[in-house]
Amino acid sequence: MPLVQVTRRAHFCAAHRLHRDDWSEERNRAVFGDCSNPNWHGHNYTLDVTVEGPVDPETGFVMDLKALKRAMAEQVVDDLDHCNLNLEVSWLEGIIPSTENVAVAIWERLAAALPDAVRLARVHLRETPNNSVVYTGG
Amino acid sequence: MPLVQVTRRAHFCAAHRLHRDDWSEERNRAVFGDCSNPNWHGHNYTLDVTVEGPVDPETGFVMDLKALKRAMAEQVVDDLDHCNLNLEVSWLEGIIPSTENVAVAIWERLAAALPDAVRLARVHLRETPNNSVVYTGG
Amino acid sequence: MPLVQVTRRAHFCAAHRLHRDDWSEERNRAVFGDCSNPNWHGHNYTLDVTVEGPVDPETGFVMDLKALKRAMAEQVVDDLDHCNLNLEVSWLEGIIPSTENVAVAIWERLAAALPDAVRLARVHLRETPNNSVVYTGG
Amino acid sequence: MPLVQVTRRAHFCAAHRLHRDDWSEERNRAVFGDCSNPNWHGHNYTLDVTVEGPVDPETGFVMDLKALKRAMAEQVVDDLDHCNLNLEVSWLEGIIPSTENVAVAIWERLAAALPDAVRLARVHLRETPNNSVVYTGG
Amino acid sequence: MPLVQVTRRAHFCAAHRLHRDDWSEERNRAVFGDCSNPNWHGHNYTLDVTVEGPVDPETGFVMDLKALKRAMAEQVVDDLDHCNLNLEVSWLEGIIPSTENVAVAIWERLAAALPDAVRLARVHLRETPNNSVVYTGG
Amino acid sequence: MPLVQVTRRAHFCAAHRLHRDDWSEERNRAVFGDCSNPNWHGHNYTLDVTVEGPVDPETGFVMDLKALKRAMAEQVVDDLDHCNLNLEVSWLEGIIPSTENVAVAIWERLAAALPDAVRLARVHLRETPNNSVVYTGG
Repeated sequence: MPLVQVTRRAHFCAAHRLHRDDWSEERNRAVFGDCSNPNWHGHNYTLDVTVEGPVDPETGFVMDLKALKRAMAEQVVDDLDHCNLNLEVSWLEGIIPSTENVAVAIWERLAAALPDAVRLARVHLRETPNNSVVYTGG
Repeated sequence: MPLVQVTRRAHFCAAHRLHRDDWSEERNRAVFGDCSNPNWHGHNYTLDVTVEGPVDPETGFVMDLKALKRAMAEQVVDDLDHCNLNLEVSWLEGIIPSTENVAVAIWERLAAALPDAVRLARVHLRETPNNSVVYTGG
Repeated sequence: MPLVQVTRRAHFCAAHRLHRDDWSEERNRAVFGDCSNPNWHGHNYTLDVTVEGPVDPETGFVMDLKALKRAMAEQVVDDLDHCNLNLEVSWLEGIIPSTENVAVAIWERLAAALPDAVRLARVHLRETPNNSVVYTGG
Repeated sequence: MPLVQVTRRAHFCAAHRLHRDDWSEERNRAVFGDCSNPNWHGHNYTLDVTVEGPVDPETGFVMDLKALKRAMAEQVVDDLDHCNLNLEVSWLEGIIPSTENVAVAIWERLAAALPDAVRLARVHLRETPNNSVVYTGG
Repeated sequence: MPLVQVTRRAHFCAAHRLHRDDWSEERNRAVFGDCSNPNWHGHNYTLDVTVEGPVDPETGFVMDLKALKRAMAEQVVDDLDHCNLNLEVSWLEGIIPSTENVAVAIWERLAAALPDAVRLARVHLRETPNNSVVYTGG
Repeated sequence: MPLVQVTRRAHFCAAHRLHRDDWSEERNRAVFGDCSNPNWHGHNYTLDVTVEGPVDPETGFVMDLKALKRAMAEQVVDDLDHCNLNLEVSWLEGIIPSTENVAVAIWERLAAALPDAVRLARVHLRETPNNSVVYTGG
């Protein structure tokens, strides 16, 4: 049975801020630039989640994409969409919501929620058309 | 001399909230839904500004696009990028920052800043891949 | 109150065939080419619906986009998605499902379903990245 | 019979330079900036051509898109693709190949080559993701 | 000589249906949902084929992209474009045309048709903007 | 500390030609086709540069993207944008400016300019929407 990677895309819009309370405003501004604006800014995030597994010969599926879509909605998108990543997401508490950190946190959420037959292979989170990160669990 | 429309695109990321202080939280939630979240959310906005004018036979230009880019930066993008549309933009004060209202406000800013040889023809503001507005000054 | 155009995008996937029963297979092939394949082919359609109206000063909206999304789903997308445009859509019966004809039929469906405060301004239907049509009711 | 607009997209890659021989290098540089580089630069152009006409009730077509594609290839794309817009295109001779001027020249080529049943409605030429022009024959 | 991956993109439009004849309609509907519609549906597929090899110091090419384009057309696209994946493609006979299975079948076709100097590295097949699969031969 | 890949995108427009002086015009034409046009042609290139490293727990960053953007500008984009890849770029001298060769040369430039904490993981250079290459240093 061939191993295939399947990717499902989702979108969410959120506000955030890059900032450390234990740093001065000057140091925050020096390190995080405009991203530390105390009044927040936001993005249309694009999330591509890739799972890998053998193709089920009965269905031709690695995984039912409706189930992957549902897992992404329940574990990630419903918690983040139209929210503030610094203030409202229990599983991002205490984390600076950089694209890197959010991608790793999304990985942890999804890895625990997928069926045994597939392996989470890749979380690709795009913050702007020009900036994106990939986490593969390593 | 042929009349041609020239469009320049810019991007900005901002936080906002749709909300009226003179309404109850329930009414805000009923009308604005998730967009009224008191903790904000945000978007990657795409702004396409179109000017119209005769093609200058000396240069082949309707307008120097570097000047249009500069006008868009100075009048609009520098004020909005990585900002909060409800709290930080003097020329959006007192305005609910719906895509419609922001587009009209951008029009007013730009119409006053363009050279006489061209006419502002269109402000196209895209809030998400699925939602956008066009204002043509009418 | 400024007049603004608001556009909402939706997607649907469908099968179709361009074909006239009252023509020979040769004539169908000559006029419609590959699109007359008796075994069908299909597309990911992108539908942009534009409404125009004054901006409501209370809400900053021309129209609640959730209501436009719902009208597009109920009147159009739910009937077309994952369907056969020749065989399964009552409001396309007897019509060759060219992009032109489908766009006009979508216009008729939506024009009857929108609130009085807005005017249907434009139906933009994209069949492939290279082919699209616009109908403005004229 | 409803009037519908149909758009066909094509791509071409070309080199060009914005420059006037009757100007000094300094003036060229001041007006055209990097675009006057004597060693050329180039772009992937995207060309959207829109024709308008009544929908033929027999075919559901405003115009056979294969014929529009062929006209665009024969009149425009075959002459421009992988070419130098300043040096190699007879119908651009003596014209500064700004996006504006190229769009107007494309319009002239196509207007003369389309069938009587349709009207050329719009030439949309995109030079970069951020810069584009529209000519509607006015 | 550096090892480089080169990717060529192609498009095709096709109809298909996910369905097993040896299952009841109910079971097909439960597993495949709308995709089991007996009247078919279809997609604009995007196919990215990646080959890997050393850069030929004489040409600067891993492989002549015109030859890759031709192999993709002859082995894959000409057979699938404007066709029905369930009914008309000899090399998909007996296979449920899920994106996974089609990608694996495309791999087999191309692996046998490429020159010895390159290795087929990746078949990326996109069924919709939100759903895609990657097969790397493993 | 999780290992994450971060990608930054940039754009440049350039002219080039695929051609060997030590070959006849016929052989150049046979191997390079239209790309050997002596009058040049050009492209809008898209460059995605990926770096990999542990996420700094203090900042949530693998690398400050402003620094990566600056390195890409100083080492690559400022030298290539609005230039002729055959004639004007010291670090491309003596190299046929195929996408493969340009990507490898970009890798060499960037690998030497990045901070020690990160590893250059991937240079992805897109010449047209349909043609791209990836170099990972191997």
